[in-house]
Amino acid sequence: MDQRVYDHAETLVDWSARVEEGDNVVVRVDEGAHDLAVAVAEKLGERGANYLTTYISDEVEAAFVQSHDGDFDQDPDFETEMLDRADSVLSLRANRNTTTKASVPGEKRAAYRKSRTGIRARRMDTDWVSTIHPTRALAQQAGMGYREYQDFVYDAVLRDWEELADQMANMKELLDEGSEVRIVKAETDLTMSIEGRTAVNSAASVAYDSHNLPSGEVFTAPYDPEGEVYFDVPMTHDGERIRDVHLTFEDGEVVDWSAETGEAALDAILTTDEGAKRLGELGIGMNRGIDRFTDSILFDEKMGDTIHLAVGRAYSSCLPEGEEGNQSAVHVDMITDVSEDSRMEIDGEVVQRNGTFRWEDGFEE
Amino acid sequence: MDQRVYDHAETLVDWSARVEEGDNVVVRVDEGAHDLAVAVAEKLGERGANYLTTYISDEVEAAFVQSHDGDFDQDPDFETEMLDRADSVLSLRANRNTTTKASVPGEKRAAYRKSRTGIRARRMDTDWVSTIHPTRALAQQAGMGYREYQDFVYDAVLRDWEELADQMANMKELLDEGSEVRIVKAETDLTMSIEGRTAVNSAASVAYDSHNLPSGEVFTAPYDPEGEVYFDVPMTHDGERIRDVHLTFEDGEVVDWSAETGEAALDAILTTDEGAKRLGELGIGMNRGIDRFTDSILFDEKMGDTIHLAVGRAYSSCLPEGEEGNQSAVHVDMITDVSEDSRMEIDGEVVQRNGTFRWEDGFEE
Repeated sequence: MDQRVYDHAETLVDWSARVEEGDNVVVRVDEGAHDLAVAVAEKLGERGANYLTTYISDEVEAAFVQSHDGDFDQDPDFETEMLDRADSVLSLRANRNTTTKASVPGEKRAAYRKSRTGIRARRMDTDWVSTIHPTRALAQQAGMGYREYQDFVYDAVLRDWEELADQMANMKELLDEGSEVRIVKAETDLTMSIEGRTAVNSAASVAYDSHNLPSGEVFTAPYDPEGEVYFDVPMTHDGERIRDVHLTFEDGEVVDWSAETGEAALDAILTTDEGAKRLGELGIGMNRGIDRFTDSILFDEKMGDTIHLAVGRAYSSCLPEGEEGNQSAVHVDMITDVSEDSRMEIDGEVVQRNGTFRWEDGFEE
Repeated sequence: MDQRVYDHAETLVDWSARVEEGDNVVVRVDEGAHDLAVAVAEKLGERGANYLTTYISDEVEAAFVQSHDGDFDQDPDFETEMLDRADSVLSLRANRNTTTKASVPGEKRAAYRKSRTGIRARRMDTDWVSTIHPTRALAQQAGMGYREYQDFVYDAVLRDWEELADQMANMKELLDEGSEVRIVKAETDLTMSIEGRTAVNSAASVAYDSHNLPSGEVFTAPYDPEGEVYFDVPMTHDGERIRDVHLTFEDGEVVDWSAETGEAALDAILTTDEGAKRLGELGIGMNRGIDRFTDSILFDEKMGDTIHLAVGRAYSSCLPEGEEGNQSAVHVDMITDVSEDSRMEIDGEVVQRNGTFRWEDGFEE
């Protein structure tokens, strides 16, 4: 077995989930995740944890949902009671076909998803971590060969996370202390307020309230944007490819927008509700192990030297106690490349120029 | 997907486990059982049950047990609470390598097994059913090609179980009402008492207190055997092949024994404890879908036109209330072919001759 699978398991169990002796750990094993499950079990044995492997298969779920009459039981107790006693839930995602569920009617899928609201909430109440084990299907979705995709995934996952968390702490400090962010690049000059908001150092560990491996971004909840912004990294939303988005903000709201591809999908997003025209997230991608777009938001938004903005809902962890923030039903991330001919300012001070942060070698004031 | 996989799932869910709407069903999916899991999920959806799939992998378990220090937690509560709320537990066994656990030290395996005593007991408290999905590894263990093995498994599983249960009810009635059984064939003339004992109609359904699919035997708990018996069907015990066993009983105990192959293993079995020299089970194999020895006791002992006797422990369901019966630590089944030149008598009356039962066409009094 590839040594990187063992390294991945060690990062997941030790850095991300912080598993300790006697912990009850649910390991959710996707169809293609067997090898990672073996490596994770070895690591859990070393730590003296208890494990219970569940099988998460899109094909099994699709067969069940398809044949059911649609009146699903809410939160069956044999599953809620298991999760209530779990310390960690590790999801090893490894699709063998990313489009399996497409054949199940949307209403039934929605009804099943709704019936499992409490299950999801209980999972989120544990030290949960989601990660990806490379499969051919995921490589295909990313438009890569399998071996190339394996390299891509492990470059993103096997970072020096302690070092990266320190780097990201610099950015969090700047955002926490700052009042206004400005982003400037071609066809982009956008300002937004971050006064009173708290940034999250998303360092791929429950110790940082970060639940995806890989991660590697710092994000906060901006408001009152003014100006224009160009998103040059492609995105897929609900199966629709959207490219080259331009947004213009006035008085904190999108007032003008366009997309070279998928403009109808962009229209639908922005007109969902009132909050959909306002911002919900500003994220600074800092994982330089991710160096290309693969049409998977888990990776794309963490790409080093990118910035993403989401229209719609804000994360409550960024908001002051008691403040509701943007409560939109949508949260759609859009990404812009800031690796060259660009700068980000906080309160008039340049903190990133052409992809180099102010605390890094080669930074030009 | 092979239509027989769907038929297998239907037999498992409807005939064997008797799943009803709203039931909580744990489906234990072995490494090679994905296709059967999909078919079972479809059937559970149709029935309106709730499902939770767990992943049972020898490789995952071996990795965990091997790396653990051996001081395992007893019955972790996230698993016991799940099982306490399960109505059925369906085990879909499908090894991809039947010798995976061989590399784990025996003491550690024993310690892990012991730590899970309560888990197993809770599983047995549900309407549990174990079945097999054919894999290449199981075909290899049976000494067959994969397609031939698939045919073998489905011939054994896809019976008219209702009809077979009726046939077996005839045999149960004869055994329940009878006092003494005599088996006569070459090198065999054995009598034993069954007075006061109750036979089990093992019809592969929880409705018959029968938990394996396939099944197809009627068994009881005999005592006071006298005479000699020859077991001509090969057997494997604890990895040791044993062939052509002769046992001689006097005053209810084995007093003389021999085996052409594996006599040392036979010695070890019979000298385990006091009960190991006495009988624990008399079983009549009645599944004629099973027509050959495959070195898997799940199939072998149900083979049509065979009789098996076990030395050692008796099943409590065959004993009168309050009676302990044979409490030996071992229970070792040995099989003899009765398809020709043989007869079984109950209280002096021939009930099976040359593989034909008295209620069947062609029976010779």
